[in-house]
Amino acid sequence: MKAIVTVMLKNGVLDPQGEAVKSALGGLGFSGVNSVRQGKVIELDLAEGTDPAQIDEMCNRLLVNAVIESYQLDIA
Amino acid sequence: MKAIVTVMLKNGVLDPQGEAVKSALGGLGFSGVNSVRQGKVIELDLAEGTDPAQIDEMCNRLLVNAVIESYQLDIA
Repeated sequence: MKAIVTVMLKNGVLDPQGEAVKSALGGLGFSGVNSVRQGKVIELDLAEGTDPAQIDEMCNRLLVNAVIESYQLDIA
Repeated sequence: MKAIVTVMLKNGVLDPQGEAVKSALGGLGFSGVNSVRQGKVIELDLAEGTDPAQIDEMCNRLLVNAVIESYQLDIA
């Protein structure tokens, strides 16, 4: 069973990595880049039948900083 | 126009972050975690009509280290 957790900064939280990527793209001559947001994607290979509630608990206890981040869980 | 670039390490490349997350989950008492892979997701807000080939070039020149990483491009 595979679970994919996509973690992004909440809107309004400063994203220094995104800002750095945006200015670097500009420096390389790419135009038309309005904004860049960078997050992380975590692929979990879990035992079959793992309860989604347990995956949520993994997110809330370790994988996601709920103060500044939000996450999306996709189970494949 | 929004483009989402998901960058993961190629199979076979050691993923120290993934290993760290896996052992931390084990330490917190979560069982059934076979493996963990961690990558990054980059959301690009681009000018309408940006050519996908230009986004590929952004990936190959800056966003992705093609030696050890592969990427997936989704245009919304």
